Amino acid sequence: MPELGTLRRWVIGVDIGGTNLVVGVVPFEGGAPLSLRSASTEGKRGPDAVVEDIGAMADAVVDEALDRHGGGRDRIAGVGIGCPGPLDLVRGRVIVTPNLGWNDYPIRDRIAERLGLRATLDNDANCATYGEWWQGAGRGARSMAGVTIGTGIGGGLVLEGRLLRGASGTAGEFGHTTIDFTGRRCACGNYGCLEAYASGPNIAARAREGIEVGYESSILDLVDGDLSAITALTVYDALLLGDRYAREVMLETARILGAGVANIVNMFNPEVIVVVGGVTRAGEHLFTPLRAEVKRRAFPTAVRACRIVPGELGQAAGVVGAAGVFVTDGGVAE
Amino acid sequence: MPELGTLRRWVIGVDIGGTNLVVGVVPFEGGAPLSLRSASTEGKRGPDAVVEDIGAMADAVVDEALDRHGGGRDRIAGVGIGCPGPLDLVRGRVIVTPNLGWNDYPIRDRIAERLGLRATLDNDANCATYGEWWQGAGRGARSMAGVTIGTGIGGGLVLEGRLLRGASGTAGEFGHTTIDFTGRRCACGNYGCLEAYASGPNIAARAREGIEVGYESSILDLVDGDLSAITALTVYDALLLGDRYAREVMLETARILGAGVANIVNMFNPEVIVVVGGVTRAGEHLFTPLRAEVKRRAFPTAVRACRIVPGELGQAAGVVGAAGVFVTDGGVAE
Repeated sequence: MPELGTLRRWVIGVDIGGTNLVVGVVPFEGGAPLSLRSASTEGKRGPDAVVEDIGAMADAVVDEALDRHGGGRDRIAGVGIGCPGPLDLVRGRVIVTPNLGWNDYPIRDRIAERLGLRATLDNDANCATYGEWWQGAGRGARSMAGVTIGTGIGGGLVLEGRLLRGASGTAGEFGHTTIDFTGRRCACGNYGCLEAYASGPNIAARAREGIEVGYESSILDLVDGDLSAITALTVYDALLLGDRYAREVMLETARILGAGVANIVNMFNPEVIVVVGGVTRAGEHLFTPLRAEVKRRAFPTAVRACRIVPGELGQAAGVVGAAGVFVTDGGVAE
Repeated sequence: MPELGTLRRWVIGVDIGGTNLVVGVVPFEGGAPLSLRSASTEGKRGPDAVVEDIGAMADAVVDEALDRHGGGRDRIAGVGIGCPGPLDLVRGRVIVTPNLGWNDYPIRDRIAERLGLRATLDNDANCATYGEWWQGAGRGARSMAGVTIGTGIGGGLVLEGRLLRGASGTAGEFGHTTIDFTGRRCACGNYGCLEAYASGPNIAARAREGIEVGYESSILDLVDGDLSAITALTVYDALLLGDRYAREVMLETARILGAGVANIVNMFNPEVIVVVGGVTRAGEHLFTPLRAEVKRRAFPTAVRACRIVPGELGQAAGVVGAAGVFVTDGGVAE
């Protein structure tokens, strides 16, 4: 077996989501994950049990990568963790995660202890954003915004290769920017947030509302007539089957997202905005009207300077980005 | 007369506004202007004539400062210029300034030639923001947003002591963020911009509309019954005289601004937001409901981390900031 020193080092990336847990091994210098596993986090299990799952999954992906590429556990430089927030980044703690039901939990140090490795923590949307900047659609950009669309809408900002975290670690919360100051209440307490219109569940809700008032759509066939079973994924599936009503719902979604993305363009003037999440399955049904709406709303010089593109890393963005945060902020290659 | 080398150096700051031109001498190390003059820019004179005015005003303020403090013209390290945009920062040109009627004009180099000094250029709102960070209400903050409220609403972002300019020099355009995506058309072409509700002229327009439909107010007395003469300053004057309707108009303004400022809080999570412009004359009639609205809308941890305060430099913010930009980006002290 070759000595360490002739072998490149790796980082474990952990992406804790409201529905899925993904763990992978990522080369320290960047690149696609060498091994990757995912599991469900549904059922609101306690954080200690999830830390144990993460430990077992990390052992498995490391063994798998070592089997394929050789070397020993000392190839692992550390572990980068992405987790829904709000988080206390300084102390490495979850303050509260509504989707997981955790409160004030020292997630960073528990995972570090379990794996016997140094660890860094950042929020899930920051990690997905950083992954796309480090190894994905934002590579090489001096300024990038990531917009993550799933159960909620999150985001992150990368300036000159560093995440902008802000004074209390909550910068980049694009989902909770007001696009309609007299608009509908959002789960965060604000009114008229982008998330209240364009998150996955809200895309599904808008689709459902139209069908309830009589729009014909193959969406209903895809759920065997069960309205309550419609999710955003059903809408994307119907769209790709050519459903006209699903296309209308997506056009409306693109226009609403366009207002939020135009705000990012006028506030940050980034080189690239990367949209991450299931909604990117809609492809040009989303991106063509989204770009048109941003062009209609934002400053021409800023629009011309900005590419608006889907992420390239898919489900691995969070794991790659969590590892990338470790490399940038906490990592020592040898 | 003492030799240069024992004397501290100075920078000329130039703040070109849609209605006023302000020129001053600022110590290289920072501090209040040593001398300051202002003149009107109304009447849409050509840029060459304005450059000549700037030259004459600069000569006058330099002579005044030298008379008081001694030394010769070699005390002047250079000139920092703030100008409404959009600008081409790399080439130092005005692309177009609607309020001044200028198009594609090499303002930076013309002023540099006239004064025989090196010059830097940035937009007026960035300069006012930078002035408040360098010498005003944002001193010492690692992250600050400036919101400038006048004829329009502009702004800027300072991170770790540097202005965030963005990919094409237009970052920080808070006035042109959408707070109502189906809302009123803005002069920029977008719909529902913050500026379309809360700029000086729009504050006046909202006050006028209420009086037209019968609200009683001393605002009308202040303009001798001439509705068309109402400006935002009239509203602030009436407010300070205890006028109840003016207070309602300001409360509404604070709530609308609160939605825009909450977006800044959730996107950037800055340590401080400095509000600059005539509207700050409303004092706590503005700031108390503004802070309450931001608290109602933005993330609690981000709200707690952020002070929302009026600027401290008044009309000198732009001149001080323009000089500060020269010091930071273009300046060599000796």
